[in-house]
Amino acid sequence: MVKVGIINVTGYAGMELARILSRHPEATIASVTGRSLAGKRLSDVLPHLAGLDMTITEEVTGSVDVVFSALPHQASAQKIASFLGKGVKAVDISADFRLKSLQEYKEWYHADHPCPERLEEAVYGLPELNRKEISSAALVANPGCYPTASILALAPAIKAGIIEPDVIIDAKSGVSGAGQKAELGYLFSEVNENFRAYSVDGHRHMPEIRQGLQAVSAGAKVDVTFMPHLVPMTRGILATCYAKLRPGSVGQGEKAAVDIRDLYNSFYKNERFVQVAGAPPATKQTLGANTCVVYPTLDPRANRLIVISCIDNLVKGAAGQAVQNMNLMFGLEESAGLRQLALYP
Amino acid sequence: MVKVGIINVTGYAGMELARILSRHPEATIASVTGRSLAGKRLSDVLPHLAGLDMTITEEVTGSVDVVFSALPHQASAQKIASFLGKGVKAVDISADFRLKSLQEYKEWYHADHPCPERLEEAVYGLPELNRKEISSAALVANPGCYPTASILALAPAIKAGIIEPDVIIDAKSGVSGAGQKAELGYLFSEVNENFRAYSVDGHRHMPEIRQGLQAVSAGAKVDVTFMPHLVPMTRGILATCYAKLRPGSVGQGEKAAVDIRDLYNSFYKNERFVQVAGAPPATKQTLGANTCVVYPTLDPRANRLIVISCIDNLVKGAAGQAVQNMNLMFGLEESAGLRQLALYP
Amino acid sequence: MVKVGIINVTGYAGMELARILSRHPEATIASVTGRSLAGKRLSDVLPHLAGLDMTITEEVTGSVDVVFSALPHQASAQKIASFLGKGVKAVDISADFRLKSLQEYKEWYHADHPCPERLEEAVYGLPELNRKEISSAALVANPGCYPTASILALAPAIKAGIIEPDVIIDAKSGVSGAGQKAELGYLFSEVNENFRAYSVDGHRHMPEIRQGLQAVSAGAKVDVTFMPHLVPMTRGILATCYAKLRPGSVGQGEKAAVDIRDLYNSFYKNERFVQVAGAPPATKQTLGANTCVVYPTLDPRANRLIVISCIDNLVKGAAGQAVQNMNLMFGLEESAGLRQLALYP
Amino acid sequence: MVKVGIINVTGYAGMELARILSRHPEATIASVTGRSLAGKRLSDVLPHLAGLDMTITEEVTGSVDVVFSALPHQASAQKIASFLGKGVKAVDISADFRLKSLQEYKEWYHADHPCPERLEEAVYGLPELNRKEISSAALVANPGCYPTASILALAPAIKAGIIEPDVIIDAKSGVSGAGQKAELGYLFSEVNENFRAYSVDGHRHMPEIRQGLQAVSAGAKVDVTFMPHLVPMTRGILATCYAKLRPGSVGQGEKAAVDIRDLYNSFYKNERFVQVAGAPPATKQTLGANTCVVYPTLDPRANRLIVISCIDNLVKGAAGQAVQNMNLMFGLEESAGLRQLALYP
Repeated sequence: MVKVGIINVTGYAGMELARILSRHPEATIASVTGRSLAGKRLSDVLPHLAGLDMTITEEVTGSVDVVFSALPHQASAQKIASFLGKGVKAVDISADFRLKSLQEYKEWYHADHPCPERLEEAVYGLPELNRKEISSAALVANPGCYPTASILALAPAIKAGIIEPDVIIDAKSGVSGAGQKAELGYLFSEVNENFRAYSVDGHRHMPEIRQGLQAVSAGAKVDVTFMPHLVPMTRGILATCYAKLRPGSVGQGEKAAVDIRDLYNSFYKNERFVQVAGAPPATKQTLGANTCVVYPTLDPRANRLIVISCIDNLVKGAAGQAVQNMNLMFGLEESAGLRQLALYP
Repeated sequence: MVKVGIINVTGYAGMELARILSRHPEATIASVTGRSLAGKRLSDVLPHLAGLDMTITEEVTGSVDVVFSALPHQASAQKIASFLGKGVKAVDISADFRLKSLQEYKEWYHADHPCPERLEEAVYGLPELNRKEISSAALVANPGCYPTASILALAPAIKAGIIEPDVIIDAKSGVSGAGQKAELGYLFSEVNENFRAYSVDGHRHMPEIRQGLQAVSAGAKVDVTFMPHLVPMTRGILATCYAKLRPGSVGQGEKAAVDIRDLYNSFYKNERFVQVAGAPPATKQTLGANTCVVYPTLDPRANRLIVISCIDNLVKGAAGQAVQNMNLMFGLEESAGLRQLALYP
Repeated sequence: MVKVGIINVTGYAGMELARILSRHPEATIASVTGRSLAGKRLSDVLPHLAGLDMTITEEVTGSVDVVFSALPHQASAQKIASFLGKGVKAVDISADFRLKSLQEYKEWYHADHPCPERLEEAVYGLPELNRKEISSAALVANPGCYPTASILALAPAIKAGIIEPDVIIDAKSGVSGAGQKAELGYLFSEVNENFRAYSVDGHRHMPEIRQGLQAVSAGAKVDVTFMPHLVPMTRGILATCYAKLRPGSVGQGEKAAVDIRDLYNSFYKNERFVQVAGAPPATKQTLGANTCVVYPTLDPRANRLIVISCIDNLVKGAAGQAVQNMNLMFGLEESAGLRQLALYP
Repeated sequence: MVKVGIINVTGYAGMELARILSRHPEATIASVTGRSLAGKRLSDVLPHLAGLDMTITEEVTGSVDVVFSALPHQASAQKIASFLGKGVKAVDISADFRLKSLQEYKEWYHADHPCPERLEEAVYGLPELNRKEISSAALVANPGCYPTASILALAPAIKAGIIEPDVIIDAKSGVSGAGQKAELGYLFSEVNENFRAYSVDGHRHMPEIRQGLQAVSAGAKVDVTFMPHLVPMTRGILATCYAKLRPGSVGQGEKAAVDIRDLYNSFYKNERFVQVAGAPPATKQTLGANTCVVYPTLDPRANRLIVISCIDNLVKGAAGQAVQNMNLMFGLEESAGLRQLALYP
């Protein structure tokens, strides 16, 4: 059994890790930490985990094989470095090790990178694109929620070169993506029966998406317009992605749609957690499940590829993907602990 | 492996059965039926069950050990009778075999009982009260959602005789309790940002609750005022139950609350699926889980017992409890297939 | 034109006052205050009031005839006292002047009353019960949202003596009732798809309701069990009230329901803002309107009166009723500025 | 007083017309019709309109100056034609008279145009673009909800020629846009906590938007990719619009954003119902109000104009705009009956 430490179990990603790992057949939760709630019983703080009888501590206690850090960025890298030094593997759910460029990190996170010496060895944890590297990594940077949905939506088309490398990603997220923060803007009365765009002047996930798409673009620079919106729901991301088809890259008329579907089906044919759907998906198809549903289509009038993708932002967009990464890092069955179907309705 | 047939898989209870049973370690879904959608693939109709590769048929096909009927009442009893005759066990999720009195059935369901000859052998499937009878039953009447929450909330107090047998149950349910019916009153625009009572002049679950409470009241007649309300949420029931404490039945002052908690803790101490909570519960603690959370307290100013209980109406209130009953009927571990924790947030 | 000052315009009650008063034909908003947002333009802070071109100041500026205080309790009474001393009338939306007993105030608000010398002159601003006193008052204590819905539901029955003076009020409120507070418990992700009771051990509106009912009970002591619940919606309160009918107080059989309806129709026959409904109401019938809908019925099996009432907690439960009170205090048409119909759906 | 008939008052647009017109200072509702509910009292069917004491009839009764038709397309044109023949003016809320091309009508509505002889005289009722024509029209085609939000967002940029005539409109709507139809897809349990695109292969509002933009494009053909999404909320539309800036059409660097804002401010400077916002808007700023909020910005990295616009789909997107059109047709103050501020929160 892999012994796991969850750092900052009381946030939304942390509690979702606890939920998933508590039912993992080959992992055991050895320690859970939380700052302000240290000393409390986990089942008092998070009654939906009533079966998990543990005490929240300030630091990881006992011996662990891997830590998941759900700390905020900056704090996360520092904490993780100390574990790596002791031979403990780590999955970082914060953004600290995602961007490969120190300069981009500084530009978007407004601070120097807290642990540049570990940046090179960190592997970007999108298993569908980086499975091999993840399998041998000691440090995995778990992707952001929007990047997971966006990169999986566009990677097949970018890699095949069928679209111009200038994409628009109009993304919509449930509110849990903002974390458990006591801010006025996330109050029920402010969000309910309301819809808005946010981070209109630039969101930190844009450079992460761009980096992910550039990694499969065979050198071509990719322009990304990324616009996130807040949906009055708790979980779920839907990304609607637009790009011009390159002239001649797919067949004419009805053939175009067929070619595109074939491309996507082929790209993901061995993937357990990516489903190329035959009909436009809805976020709720993924609620609680580690699935990304991808639906490619085209607007023939404007000669434009449109790809819609859906995930549960806390599962495939955070805790579930983190466990998928752990499974790879420890040579376990990739879907261990992750076979739960979506809850519907 | 127990071979299962799900009759009417396309309703909310039916699809929830498919979700749970598809991950059951000792059962296998052998056949799923649906009327208007017969011939379609289950994963096309219910894309959240994409992993389940089956075709919906009009009738149960092949050999099965047990059928779950999620048909409407009247149709359900008739269908079930045919299976019982062939030695197949049955769990009826409809209301047909719940009420023991033919007269009450007629009064509340406005029709003669469709299968009176099987009524006597039917066991009311509330495992926490009838475990032994369920274990040897061929036909189990799966309780209604409100009765599950209400009876589990009040049975300890009624049985111990600490309250007057005149209870008020003010119950609140998410909309999925109404099933997947295309009626104006359940449209999103009608329910959202809205709250109302319904069936104000009498709800069919009232006699079922009364029967369940009377079964533990040592002969005392129990009066039940039952008032259901529609909450703008999909899943979840919360019942707030009120009754006058009998003079002298519990201690004075602070002792009263302690005595009540002791009574409930003791009553449910061996129950895996009933949790006596130390703080007032919220429905979301049970989302997707087969749990009933019960919180007994009292209003000392009015000398009144108050018990709050929560369930997921589609799990402990329908499909989950049905699987719990199946487990008992086939001598399996009672919690097999039902260990999923609630999804939160 | 009545010149109005709104103290603490940036909370939910304050902004609702601004919305209503900006369209009032005989009042003009002369000054709006707010602490942390002083100096900002109202239309920048509250863009839905884009038409209102005013600057938020720290204190009321210029001359006003009346102030509405939407400050928290304690702070509110102190601020109001200074205006009363200058001959300015006041409507207090806080709880400071609602309870007539200094001792109850201390017990429930955990502090000494901040302005006991003004308490006696304060009139409880429920126009349907205290219209005459309000008309000549300089200081009106605007009722709480739950007390408005509860007292209007039960006053006719209590006054007529048809019920035992031991009532249960099971109340459900939208989240805006908690105000615009950045607390974890009111985050969208915590409230959405969730339902719970709160203040289970006692809510401050209970003594206010009891006082209001006792005022019409002809001296009889009234016991009140009050249980509030949080509904995943923004606006709206629905109270379901239960009490045993006194033997012989209403007719037998079908006559009972008729007698009860006649009593309520007669009690409210001249009231513009109370509607005795012919069918069970839903909160959304009152969204944005200054209406209380009341539906009395009975459970003949348990010989119990049930009254359901609905309001918009921010209108009839706060700002709208405050304007109704102002209209009375200044001899204006009682419905001036308050004729808006509910928004549906 | 203008005497008004509302045809099909029981749908969402019709009941919203009744709400607005019942408070209109210079119009009076003379007759309301409805098919299945004919003979019922309006206040029984729509209790939020309790103040409106009228009987629903099958046909318009008495003499009227104008009819609003909220019938489905096809039925609407036929009904309207009969009134026009009698000298009664008409505002058609259906789509029948919006598209100027009979061929496009047939292509998108799958039927021949029901009244081609009236098509030429029909004026497209977007007052901000067609005020003069509306003022002298007898027949106004009230724009669709998406077209209203989309055309108002993009018209200034298209007219000024600062963008390439190839636009993407990623639109999100509350569920009331679908009308009061008892379809499974609009049930609360299907929509709540869910988000999806729909009409992915083409939506009828696309050609209407294209026609509207082409009308201001100085002859340039405009390509429109239009993708609608369903938001789990009742009211509100937000459209996020993307287009490439034409080289040199606006200033460099920071100057670009300023130029764009100046253009929009100037375009709408005399418009009471279009508000060019200084910050990204949220749909709730428009709830119940006849306002369109427009926020133009740009993505400097991709040299792309982004315009976000919001409306209440039932007010500026339907009934409110219809009344605005009526006001113009009868020479009334354009904002008569439409001064209500948005309800927030």
